[in-house]
Amino acid sequence: MAADGAASTATVVGVDFGTLSARAVVVRADDGTELGTGVAEYAHGAIERELPVLGGSPLPADWALQDPGDWRASLGAAVREAVRDAGVSPQSVIGIGTDFTACTVLPVAADGTPLCELPGLRGRPHAWPKLWKHHAAQAQADRITDLAHERGEPWIARYGGRISSEWQFAKALQVLEEDPDIYQRTRRWIEAADWIIWQLTGQETRNACTAGYKGIYQDGHYPSREYLKALNPSFEDFADTRLAGLPLSPLGSRAGSLTAAGAALTGLPEGIAVATGNVDAHVTAPAANAIAPGQMLAIMGTSTCHVMNGVVLSDVPGICGVVDGGIIDGFYGYEAGQSAVGDIFAWWTELALPASYAAEAASRGLSAHEYLTSLTRGRSVGAHGLVALDWMGGNRSILVDHHLSGVIVGLTLATPPEDVYLALLESTAFGTRMIMEAFESSGVPVTEFIAAGGLKRNHALMQIYADVLRRPVSVADSDQAPAVGSAIHAAVAAGFHSDVVTAASVMGRCSHGAYQPDPARADAYDVLFAEYQTLHDYFSGRSERSGPGSNDVLHRLRRIRNSAIGGS
Amino acid sequence: MAADGAASTATVVGVDFGTLSARAVVVRADDGTELGTGVAEYAHGAIERELPVLGGSPLPADWALQDPGDWRASLGAAVREAVRDAGVSPQSVIGIGTDFTACTVLPVAADGTPLCELPGLRGRPHAWPKLWKHHAAQAQADRITDLAHERGEPWIARYGGRISSEWQFAKALQVLEEDPDIYQRTRRWIEAADWIIWQLTGQETRNACTAGYKGIYQDGHYPSREYLKALNPSFEDFADTRLAGLPLSPLGSRAGSLTAAGAALTGLPEGIAVATGNVDAHVTAPAANAIAPGQMLAIMGTSTCHVMNGVVLSDVPGICGVVDGGIIDGFYGYEAGQSAVGDIFAWWTELALPASYAAEAASRGLSAHEYLTSLTRGRSVGAHGLVALDWMGGNRSILVDHHLSGVIVGLTLATPPEDVYLALLESTAFGTRMIMEAFESSGVPVTEFIAAGGLKRNHALMQIYADVLRRPVSVADSDQAPAVGSAIHAAVAAGFHSDVVTAASVMGRCSHGAYQPDPARADAYDVLFAEYQTLHDYFSGRSERSGPGSNDVLHRLRRIRNSAIGGS
Repeated sequence: MAADGAASTATVVGVDFGTLSARAVVVRADDGTELGTGVAEYAHGAIERELPVLGGSPLPADWALQDPGDWRASLGAAVREAVRDAGVSPQSVIGIGTDFTACTVLPVAADGTPLCELPGLRGRPHAWPKLWKHHAAQAQADRITDLAHERGEPWIARYGGRISSEWQFAKALQVLEEDPDIYQRTRRWIEAADWIIWQLTGQETRNACTAGYKGIYQDGHYPSREYLKALNPSFEDFADTRLAGLPLSPLGSRAGSLTAAGAALTGLPEGIAVATGNVDAHVTAPAANAIAPGQMLAIMGTSTCHVMNGVVLSDVPGICGVVDGGIIDGFYGYEAGQSAVGDIFAWWTELALPASYAAEAASRGLSAHEYLTSLTRGRSVGAHGLVALDWMGGNRSILVDHHLSGVIVGLTLATPPEDVYLALLESTAFGTRMIMEAFESSGVPVTEFIAAGGLKRNHALMQIYADVLRRPVSVADSDQAPAVGSAIHAAVAAGFHSDVVTAASVMGRCSHGAYQPDPARADAYDVLFAEYQTLHDYFSGRSERSGPGSNDVLHRLRRIRNSAIGGS
Repeated sequence: MAADGAASTATVVGVDFGTLSARAVVVRADDGTELGTGVAEYAHGAIERELPVLGGSPLPADWALQDPGDWRASLGAAVREAVRDAGVSPQSVIGIGTDFTACTVLPVAADGTPLCELPGLRGRPHAWPKLWKHHAAQAQADRITDLAHERGEPWIARYGGRISSEWQFAKALQVLEEDPDIYQRTRRWIEAADWIIWQLTGQETRNACTAGYKGIYQDGHYPSREYLKALNPSFEDFADTRLAGLPLSPLGSRAGSLTAAGAALTGLPEGIAVATGNVDAHVTAPAANAIAPGQMLAIMGTSTCHVMNGVVLSDVPGICGVVDGGIIDGFYGYEAGQSAVGDIFAWWTELALPASYAAEAASRGLSAHEYLTSLTRGRSVGAHGLVALDWMGGNRSILVDHHLSGVIVGLTLATPPEDVYLALLESTAFGTRMIMEAFESSGVPVTEFIAAGGLKRNHALMQIYADVLRRPVSVADSDQAPAVGSAIHAAVAAGFHSDVVTAASVMGRCSHGAYQPDPARADAYDVLFAEYQTLHDYFSGRSERSGPGSNDVLHRLRRIRNSAIGGS
């Protein structure tokens, strides 16, 4: 950790691959000071309508692809811009780390070439990388989940009882069953998080995080051949041939060295350390120095992802997953989530911002969110008479049910848009409290709640969380925490720091206790939370965690809807 | 009914006293043809903030008063305008009938002079007429209801188990308890429906309709002295002294003859027949010729009032009231209601009409309602995945609970404003079906559903009602049906027709079966209605009709809200 004269100017680069762009930062390796930033959008963004090729055919519903060429190009552009912005010499950079959306996964040839870049395959949709939000493998995911329960597979409990359609196995099975030729040509099925490392180092690696959370790797192995054969006889060797064959790389380890090609792409020195791949949410933990067991980090944006280290392995009902070394090597990494958070607030401001409100907000120079919030400032808890279920995007934790939908209760002819808006803010805090209580009642205590992501800047929301959770809310300082987290991993991979915990302690930044709960408001929210819990259980229907007396109306309404619109 | 040469040109005048204006029509007595219309707004409208006198003090919350001088002035202006518009000689008018909002009630001196018009009393709020929507007597209403149940008063079942704060006894008890001096000066406590007749004829009368529905007159008498004494010792003689003393006048009877003063006011011939007073909803039945037992007339506007004649007296749970001769002399008149209907649609278009929608609607020359409706045209039933409880204004029938509130279930991030709008239209149809089924399961069959009021012109809504109710929807033809209904009563009072049933058969107008149910859509709505019923029972909480497994959350949320805002 001590740095000599030369090393004190050492810098590291972190690159965060998001859904629409890559963001690079240059930070000082000794103390994490952010020196420069670069952002580069993907030329093709998320490919959801048609392939970006001549005569590209329209994609079916729920598809979402991405172009690996975009990732390469944005990587090069963002890193070069960040180094320029930092005003440092590229020679000061001693390592690079990256993180990616997940599960974003692609079929590649034996040398790592994406199939969609091979001659003759560019017009084949299944040859392209499937973006995390590709949701067309639901049928496969359902079979994966059902069969796991039927066979009593021990790993299913690690994933809250359900394997997502977003993950590696469902997406691969979809390829096999819809385009067997592409499946046969697939030599390796690899997370983009690992593929980008392959591009930089020339060697394939597999990081412990995505293998565990997205690849059903538990207790040293992937699902058995027998299980996979029962899913589809041709799927029997999928894990053996397309996933396994390499030891998993611990997070923070050195995946390899930057190749000449990688140096040419990024403008960084050949031979510097390249850190093992990582995931945008999980890599944020060191950036906020939220690493100690019990520190729950909530990356709050369109959705919320909760990551937390624990010292024991516990099956917490309804979480997304628990993975050995999934966040920090040496701890059990727990992940939970809320399907929609900022998305719900955005939905409401689209739906219920009358023209008069829009005009007034514009005249005051406020966003819709700021204006609606301003109208409820200083209001007593419960003055709106409302409680909502924050399931407009389904419920990830703790019900693990994407087919639930939202409910608003207590509306009157005097209810204005801002009252519902406030109730929706609160509903997401109630959802977080459900998750927190699920952890605690499973023997995984939560000692601190730390917010990161875009919503951490919403002061009203943060105060609501403090009041609803009855505990202080801490806030990650960096506005580009994932990229900083990747840079921290780079510093460790480069040997500048001995391990991620140590690096995070000097390079991570967090304002502890930035928001303190108001005891009176917390008491008032307890009463509303009790109502939320009752409605939560009632409307959970036949979800995993529902009990007697529940009403399956939300599932029935969805089936009616799907049947009415001819969807699925 | 036969008319000779002179009588064939005979006309009658009907005057409908609404909440903000009086509307007069001139119609032909022989066939009901509408010849002319006149409308005159009340100068002081609904008085809800302060008395319209010099230095008038602010009124407390929930007060709503009216100025009797406005009623007189508007009566004169509207009738004169209608006669001018009709192009007939005033001498052709053989009778006048009126209907009024109810319960709108006032304290008067022995000669019928409103106390608020007496010297020295104009600044005393309790001296003024209380408009139907004066809601400040809730405490008194609750005591009236509770005591009736405690004492097992037989009449309470006729009112769905609850006496409204809007009615005569609650409002009078409020006067007694808040301004005993005004109460002592009150010689008679009289419905505006009867007071206006007193102005025209010089004689006090009491119509059977308001006495029954608003005055707790059942089986030949008002509530007993013992009951009233138990409410408040000074209230013991209230009914004897301020209400009773006259035989009730059957609807359609001749209350008296137009006095010279009445003639001077209206410009109509002295001595013509003046029909007994009536209520706006109930008087609409003959205008639509919806008089036969089983013909349910729904007057659909901001709220909906259902009136229907029956041949048997049955206690239908959750209705507003059943009154002997309450609609048509000789039948039992049943009344039920939905607290908010058009009000709910208006609320939503205020809340959730984004600027882009408003602009598009304007560019197409559509109202918000028309535009939202156009966006859902042709949609399959249930394609929105939503079901709502239409309780944003409470629930009048069948739960008789004004403290309930609305619920929307099934919202997703893809739910646009028009989907909720459609679900709200449907929810009011489901509410109507609940009422209809309550009648039928109590042995009061419904043979036809007839819509009147402003919403009858909403074709999409009418078709939804036909589909949800699984039966044709008929539509009252006149756009000013209450005034026409009053004119029909005038024709009977004048002796031109023998009785209201006969008069309605030739003067009333209805398009029978204007909307036919679509069997496939009706089947689909059955499924959604089943969901509505389940949620209806669940959210009814501790309402009169709730069962086990219900959730009282709506009442608790209201109490929380009231406590938070310091209201009641």
